[in-house]
Parts: sequence; C-alpha cells; structure tokens
Amino acid sequence: MEFELIERLKSALPRRSSTPLGIGDDCAILTERSGFDQLVTTDMLLDGVHFIYDADRKNAQSLDLIARKSIAVSLSDIAAMGGEPRTAFLALAIPRSWNIEQANRLADCFARAADEFQIDLAGGDTTCWDHLLAIDVTVLGRVRKSKAIRRDGARAGDFICVSGPLGGSLSGKHLTFTPRIRLGQWLAELGSVHAMIDISDGLLADLGHILRQSNVGAELFSEQIPISKQATALSDGKSPLEHALTDGEDFELLWTMSEPAYRKLRQQQEDFIEVHHIGNITREKGCFLIDKQGNRVQRSSGGYVHRLG
Amino acid sequence: MEFELIERLKSALPRRSSTPLGIGDDCAILTERSGFDQLVTTDMLLDGVHFIYDADRKNAQSLDLIARKSIAVSLSDIAAMGGEPRTAFLALAIPRSWNIEQANRLADCFARAADEFQIDLAGGDTTCWDHLLAIDVTVLGRVRKSKAIRRDGARAGDFICVSGPLGGSLSGKHLTFTPRIRLGQWLAELGSVHAMIDISDGLLADLGHILRQSNVGAELFSEQIPISKQATALSDGKSPLEHALTDGEDFELLWTMSEPAYRKLRQQQEDFIEVHHIGNITREKGCFLIDKQGNRVQRSSGGYVHRLG
Repeated sequence: MEFELIERLKSALPRRSSTPLGIGDDCAILTERSGFDQLVTTDMLLDGVHFIYDADRKNAQSLDLIARKSIAVSLSDIAAMGGEPRTAFLALAIPRSWNIEQANRLADCFARAADEFQIDLAGGDTTCWDHLLAIDVTVLGRVRKSKAIRRDGARAGDFICVSGPLGGSLSGKHLTFTPRIRLGQWLAELGSVHAMIDISDGLLADLGHILRQSNVGAELFSEQIPISKQATALSDGKSPLEHALTDGEDFELLWTMSEPAYRKLRQQQEDFIEVHHIGNITREKGCFLIDKQGNRVQRSSGGYVHRLG
Repeated sequence: MEFELIERLKSALPRRSSTPLGIGDDCAILTERSGFDQLVTTDMLLDGVHFIYDADRKNAQSLDLIARKSIAVSLSDIAAMGGEPRTAFLALAIPRSWNIEQANRLADCFARAADEFQIDLAGGDTTCWDHLLAIDVTVLGRVRKSKAIRRDGARAGDFICVSGPLGGSLSGKHLTFTPRIRLGQWLAELGSVHAMIDISDGLLADLGHILRQSNVGAELFSEQIPISKQATALSDGKSPLEHALTDGEDFELLWTMSEPAYRKLRQQQEDFIEVHHIGNITREKGCFLIDKQGNRVQRSSGGYVHRLG
C-alpha cells in the first residue's frame, strides 16, 4: 500500500519548476533563487485531536476537509511570517484497518488541497499501524531576504490588529478557514509590521507569545474585538467575548504596527485586506482587558487545549 | 506541556549560522548560499512499527535510541543523494499518559542526537493524544548544484555496490546504525556514481527501485553479497542469504558505477569507504540471482513489511 499511495500522489500532481525532483527518490531536490530567505514549518494533526475520523465514526469529518486543514494549518504559519508557500511534504500514519480505496481517496484529497493552494507536494512517507490516522505536513516557503515578520518586534504604542472575527471555530471554521497568505505577504511587503503571529492557540495565548518575545505588555479594548457569528451562537455558559479571547484555531493573523501605518493600511482597497484595531502595545508588562466602562482586568494568556468532540 | 517541550529543546540546542531563526516562531528561517541544491526528506516513525516503547513495555527500547534512529533514518536519505544534512524539524504525537519528565527526557534525547549528527533542530510541533508515540522528522540538507545522485541513472554494465554487510538488522542495528553520510558525500563529489539509494526496505526491494526507475535489470552474485553476523546468527528457518536479500533497515548505501570507476574507488584508503561489488546492471529487465554453480533464479523485489516485536 505504501508505494501505491506515493505513486498515486506522484501521478496526480503537477510539478512546478522550483522542484526539479519531487516524489519518488530518497529526497526531493529544491532550488531557490538568491534574494530569498526560506521558511519551514511542520504540523502534526491527529485523529480525535485536530480532526475526527476513526476516533468517532458517528461524527466523522470528510477526508477532503481533513486533508485541506492539514495543509492549511501550515500555510497559516507561512502567512504569519509574511511568506509565500511553495512546497509541502506529507507523512502519514494510516490505520491498518483501512482498505486501499480509503488510502487512495486520502491521497486524492491531498492532491486537491495542494492544487487549491497552488503548492507542490514534493515528497512524503506512508506507514500503516494499528492506531488512528496521524498526519504530518511540512511546508517550505520563501520571503524576500530579511522581510519575514517575527514575533519579537512589537513596540510600546503599536496598534494591535487582527484580520477577522474570532471564536467558535470548532463549529466548522477550523476545517474550512482560508489561510491569510495574501494578506500576510502584503503586510510583509508593506514593511511596517513589527510583529505577527497566526491565531492557533487563541487570541490571548497567541498575543501572549508576542508580548513575551517582544518584552512588552498590552491592553485590549473588549468592545473592539470582532466576534464571530459562531461564537455568538454558542450557548455553553461562556460569553461570546470569552470565546473570541480564548478559542483556538481561528487562523486569523494578529499583528502590531504603528498608528500611522495602521491609518494608511485602513485606506487600502484590496479585497483581501481586513483589519480590526483591538488594542495597543504598552511598555507595562501584562495583558489587560478594558471594557466600555473603562474597567481594567488583567488576563493571563489563558490556555487552549486541542481537543475535539 | 507543549510549550515547555519546545522551550526545553530551544535552550538545549546550539544555533548554527545557517539558521537565523530556529525554534520559537511560526516558522524557522533558513538561508542558503548559492551554488547548492536543497534536499528534503520526511519520515514518520511509529511505536510498535519502527521502534518499541509503550507498544510493549516489557521490550521497550530506550528513548535515546528511539530519538537517534528517528533522525538517523532521514540522514540516511540525505546520504543516499550524496548530501550534507543541515537542519531537522521534529513533530511529536505524545501519549497523554506520559508525565512531564518523560517528555523532557525525549526532548533531551533529540537534542543529544542532533548534537551527535551536528545538525540544527530548528523547529517542530508537539501534541498529546490518547494513542502511542508517533515521531515525524523532516531533514533539510544540501548538495552542490546538480551533484545529487538519483535513483534513475543506472546503466547496463554498471557494477552494483553496497557499503556493508546486510541482514538481521532487527537484532539491533536498526537502532544503532551509522548513516553513511561521509561516504555518500564522497561518492557525490567523485561524480562517477550513476544511481544510489539507501537500503531501508531490503536489498531486493531497494535495488528494484533503481531498476524500475532506470529502466534496466540486474544480476546479483549470491556469493559476493556481504552477510552480517546478525543474519548468520538467526535460526528462524530463513537462510542468512535470504535475510541479506530481504531484511529491511540496514541503511547501507546501494549504488551503481562503471567498472573502471569501481576499480579506482577500491584503491582509496579513507577509513569511511567500504565497498562490496555484488552484481551488475543488465540491459535485460528483471533481477536474477546467480549462485556459485552458475544457477540463475529470477527474484522479485520481495516485500519488506515494517513490523517489530
């Protein structure tokens, strides 16, 4: 089964010029023009944690959505550095109970996802075992030399911005989100973004990464935080705002930039640009939430635990 | 637990100059001098398949050996292209039953393995789940432009060479082997190797990849195939030769070159060079085994099934 799956991927895929040798040898061979830095990210997605398939047959999600998410999650990491994704590598641990049709279907789903996102699937590894489906995707991308946007550059006075509504992603968005690749690349070219991350662990948690690594603090204006319809629709005792603050897997971009740069950005007309100013970076450490009445509450970075179903 | 493990790896690791940004952001940033092609390989290693840990507590192998093997397997792929390994990325699915000490121990084992092989651990991902340990390692390496040795270049008349004794790897070598990185790089620089692969699926199976991709056949001289002591020591009804032909995970290099190039190679004195001439590439398709008496038997590429214990 292992070799057939690789052959199937090989035949299903177009080859791009940056990949002189793709699937079918010991390694892929890549070339890169000078003037670029390379970006690399890897993500492990597990049945019962990041998606549901054999873990709960009753609520199983489609292999198409599972394959798409597995790639999109890594693309969101590339977007969060302002990069252009180019090549993906796929390692699969497949349940021994699967038949060859299921495996082929998964291969086809990955080929479609790679096609949707216009990246090469240039290599991989498949093995069978007696446990659940595990998927590892490694994506390589590029960014113009020294243009990558890191987490450690936020400065006191920066506006904190987010690219879309937050919360309730587990209702569906975590499987269908669009990684903000164009926006990320556009922000990197702009050159005025000081720090950026994608929201995978939750707004407070991911903002926490920026604050720690930049050695600054933040105040968030609770009224300005865009809340998704999904978060508003939930009736689990947590407020929609709490969902927006702590739910994971929104995969929106979260970045900081100076107020003048933000004003300029607001005037842009490109349809892929969405920006919400939700707070400010402060010299004082800690993360504070400020409500309409001006009440100020300190918030820890909170914890988001990956667990579905 | 997830963040701590990453922090631990980050603090345990030296940073090399080819990795301006390693663990701790959305992506690693790599730079490469021009004049090189990049090599990429990814391997998924699973408890109960490639190693034994929670799958069979009685026969559990040490985390040190497990981490080392997980990296060495990918390094062997880089060696099989003649490349220099540079950077590794690590994705872990960790059993939820583990305590933090176990996870830290695994992180330390990976740091030691990266140190042994002098590569950067530049990024990764850790998640917990209710199943067994799964490890994915992606290794990036480089090779001088157009010097990578592929599988598809074998020519009729080539000598088939192997770098060491084969068979019985599951007795221990599969956990302790030395990836043939220096030899692989040396052969690539030599420039006279036509095709190369590492023996992971078994001699017949991996030779089969070269034959298919090069559109040629082979005859192997059974007397000239070096057989490991481990294969000779096994008393499972299979002959030592059969073990050498079909056992997987020897991670020796298998390559083809012209007879004159082979004669020159034999005169080299470097201590990392070991070479055994085990057969010849033929225009006629198929793989034939020829014994002392001159008997000729066709052999399929055989099947190696990854399964321990």
